Amino acid sequence: MSKTLHIVGTGPGDLTYLPPLARQAIAESDGLVAYPLYIDLIQEQDPDLITGKQRHDLPLGEEIERARLALDLAAEGQTIALISSGDIGIFAMATLVFELLDRECNPRWVDIDVQVIPGISAMQTAASKLGAPLGHDFCAISLSDLLTPWPTIETRVRAAGMGDFVVSFYNPVSRKRDWQLAKARELLLEYRPAETPVILGRNLSRKDEKTEVTTLGALDTTQVDMLTVVVIGNSESRTLTHQQKTWVYTPRGYAKKLEG
Amino acid sequence: MSKTLHIVGTGPGDLTYLPPLARQAIAESDGLVAYPLYIDLIQEQDPDLITGKQRHDLPLGEEIERARLALDLAAEGQTIALISSGDIGIFAMATLVFELLDRECNPRWVDIDVQVIPGISAMQTAASKLGAPLGHDFCAISLSDLLTPWPTIETRVRAAGMGDFVVSFYNPVSRKRDWQLAKARELLLEYRPAETPVILGRNLSRKDEKTEVTTLGALDTTQVDMLTVVVIGNSESRTLTHQQKTWVYTPRGYAKKLEG
Repeated sequence: MSKTLHIVGTGPGDLTYLPPLARQAIAESDGLVAYPLYIDLIQEQDPDLITGKQRHDLPLGEEIERARLALDLAAEGQTIALISSGDIGIFAMATLVFELLDRECNPRWVDIDVQVIPGISAMQTAASKLGAPLGHDFCAISLSDLLTPWPTIETRVRAAGMGDFVVSFYNPVSRKRDWQLAKARELLLEYRPAETPVILGRNLSRKDEKTEVTTLGALDTTQVDMLTVVVIGNSESRTLTHQQKTWVYTPRGYAKKLEG
Repeated sequence: MSKTLHIVGTGPGDLTYLPPLARQAIAESDGLVAYPLYIDLIQEQDPDLITGKQRHDLPLGEEIERARLALDLAAEGQTIALISSGDIGIFAMATLVFELLDRECNPRWVDIDVQVIPGISAMQTAASKLGAPLGHDFCAISLSDLLTPWPTIETRVRAAGMGDFVVSFYNPVSRKRDWQLAKARELLLEYRPAETPVILGRNLSRKDEKTEVTTLGALDTTQVDMLTVVVIGNSESRTLTHQQKTWVYTPRGYAKKLEG
């Protein structure tokens, strides 16, 4: 009996971003636990990778149920892959598995081998498509106040402003949360100029990929949805045009050397 | 004439972390520009991937020269891969290429196709080996004051403390920089408890990999070297023991639901 739980991030969606380590973990699993879209994306591109495996699809909102099911199935002696897009360690399911292991002390779970396999997170894909905005100190903040009280989020956005961090916003908007990104934009405008470059990336690496470069002043938050990652430059981030395309980068301070 | 520059992050070192997109970019390149260790790591594991390609090894400290050489070789009509470990967009070479394109306006470079390919960054590998410390809002700060003045770094560390971000320190120490990590630890201790979990990861995925879980209070900064990434939990990060191993996670706030 193997009792193995692989906790696997699959990156943005296109399987060319999926490292062999993650592919191998999926390949050797008996069952896959995920929000259905992530398995559908694999199915479309490489059906052989998941043929014969049992799918355990659970909808958005059932994150605790997904983590618990993955542990319970592994406890039965199966090899299970709990899958999310991006890096499953970043604003995703991995932490919830450890929280369950820690809080519930379920004796059936004690001998499960747990392995976390990182993936390319949304901010990294967005950054790479449009330059190198994460070239210097940055932070990542989830704007979802479903689990984190808004005052805590606001404190973090202000801290990011004070520290002049490049900021990636995850979960910027949802059907029920429509004002948080606008408020976060307003807060950051107290600390950095309206000309600060902003990157939007939506459905990155997928058919309907959309990327856009705008500025903090011009950012229209009503155009942003829950599938978008928003990366906001720091006060030194710059844009340039190369090959008819606008790119964004955050310099690390080589300018002095370049001028010297 | 192809005139292509792939800017490629290779992840922690073990090629099982290298996505097919990055592998393909290396495979189709005529020449590789890198700090020699990163090409040696490929050579050891998969010599065929780089057989017949010209190596352009440049030592540490010659980052500008490396970026310029990669652009110049691509301008000659070659397909070039500029390589670094981790994610080349995070504290690495990608931003320097864009800075050169932006500042030097070299007419020989204008028709080079540039592509950035992200990789798994050190904090992600460290996090995955020891749990899910990046499960909630986090920041990444380079402690190298060679290019960034220390007061800017100190402001960022304080902001990270105020915002209660999980903090990953890159470039924590070098032969010439021996006090910055100790100072950063002191600063963070003003904001979070001595019991805060800390993760150290060194040479991750390589032969002499070393991982360690300690606390902010107990962190002995003299044991940390330039190859180590340091991840410091926020005030809610917790440790647990599972399968005789200590893991660290940062909860997202499901506790209320779990108790409810």
